[in-house]
Amino acid sequence: MSNQSIFDNIRIVLCQTSHPGNIGSTARAMKTMGFKHLYLVQPAKYPNEQATAMAAGADDVLDNAIVTQTLSEALVGCGFAIGLSARKRYLSLETVNAREAALQANDYAATQPVAIVFGTEMSGLTNAELDCCQLLAMIPANPEYSSLNLSMAVQLVCYELRMLSLASAPNLLSSAPTDKASLNLLATNEELERFYAHLEETLLHIGYLNPKAPKKLFERMRRLYSRARLEKEEINLLRGVLTLTQAPRKHSKY
Amino acid sequence: MSNQSIFDNIRIVLCQTSHPGNIGSTARAMKTMGFKHLYLVQPAKYPNEQATAMAAGADDVLDNAIVTQTLSEALVGCGFAIGLSARKRYLSLETVNAREAALQANDYAATQPVAIVFGTEMSGLTNAELDCCQLLAMIPANPEYSSLNLSMAVQLVCYELRMLSLASAPNLLSSAPTDKASLNLLATNEELERFYAHLEETLLHIGYLNPKAPKKLFERMRRLYSRARLEKEEINLLRGVLTLTQAPRKHSKY
Repeated sequence: MSNQSIFDNIRIVLCQTSHPGNIGSTARAMKTMGFKHLYLVQPAKYPNEQATAMAAGADDVLDNAIVTQTLSEALVGCGFAIGLSARKRYLSLETVNAREAALQANDYAATQPVAIVFGTEMSGLTNAELDCCQLLAMIPANPEYSSLNLSMAVQLVCYELRMLSLASAPNLLSSAPTDKASLNLLATNEELERFYAHLEETLLHIGYLNPKAPKKLFERMRRLYSRARLEKEEINLLRGVLTLTQAPRKHSKY
Repeated sequence: MSNQSIFDNIRIVLCQTSHPGNIGSTARAMKTMGFKHLYLVQPAKYPNEQATAMAAGADDVLDNAIVTQTLSEALVGCGFAIGLSARKRYLSLETVNAREAALQANDYAATQPVAIVFGTEMSGLTNAELDCCQLLAMIPANPEYSSLNLSMAVQLVCYELRMLSLASAPNLLSSAPTDKASLNLLATNEELERFYAHLEETLLHIGYLNPKAPKKLFERMRRLYSRARLEKEEINLLRGVLTLTQAPRKHSKY
């Protein structure tokens, strides 16, 4: 599967949105996750200044939105449509959580257009709208307060989809540090060992370690520094401190 | 691990938020995912009508928010703080994506308070703020448009945390280190700050830092120790070394 196809094949469909600000925030949420196809079924107000204001830099997504009179028109060409709901209510439709829905959407979107359908703010999707969907997805919200803002729900679903699209780029999902620290040259094992030797000598010098039994306490020290994954340059900094710690005070650098 | 502890132990910290509406949306986003502890570091406007309007039914989270003057105050009691950033920029801090960060937060939050820290809308976290964090988390946004709304970012992180709390065996999902280090009590933010102050004083005492410009070199030191995620007991070991480093040699322990 091409990773790009998900961004080309997924469309976000908002049904009868009341607040134009939510349309704008949806455009922004979509674009931050790399999606661009927005469909608006009978929006209360569109185009609208508030929508534009909330879209921030995602005006292109907003301006290219396709307005339709019915959900069916917005689903033209789609083989698979997922309806979003805050609660389990439409019992005859298979219901999964948003993460599982994203997996299914991702699979289908490799080869065909897929729609993610969101209902109106106050009451969600109607039964007639759900009849156009093949799957119902729920965001597992707090049962005592499940009132997610519409564009927040769009953000979450687009995020789940994006995470999947990145799955083949291991650096983004991997637990390994992806910062430059991992690219900076780490101290080699022998540099570390020289540092530890210098540290032990210094801790004996200042009377911190018991010369008769230095090991136990010193092992804790080693472990602590070992966790930091010291870089070459940091070893130099630390050894500078050790050298000055052992030096008579008058030999300070300044 | 009790799944409940994550909701009690996680706090969301917003630094210098400009738009009160974002504070309200954040409260709502948190509550939809079951979180309640909100900290506001120098908010531009709070309390504020717009915040209340955007909080919708999450006024309780908003009303109970704790306002502080500094990030350190907001981190009191926390052993682990995760900074959120839209871009890879703070090169020496370990960086993972939001999903991985949630795994780590979830592990630590089983036994201790954990903070998730968000910067100001326009420019994100400052380097000084990141210096108070042990991990940097990124939401893998569209590189061409990574401008997530602040409360959207909070929503995504809280969602990831909630998904973990709902998983029946969170540790099986976790790629985070599951060694004993993650179970030991970490030093709290204030213990760390006292250690850093002691370290700086000692490095000045031995003449390692230039008294006229101590900051730059010292920041590298802080960062190095910050990466190690020091435990309470380790702080005591290190401060023992500092005390002896400053003491006349004859006062050694042995």
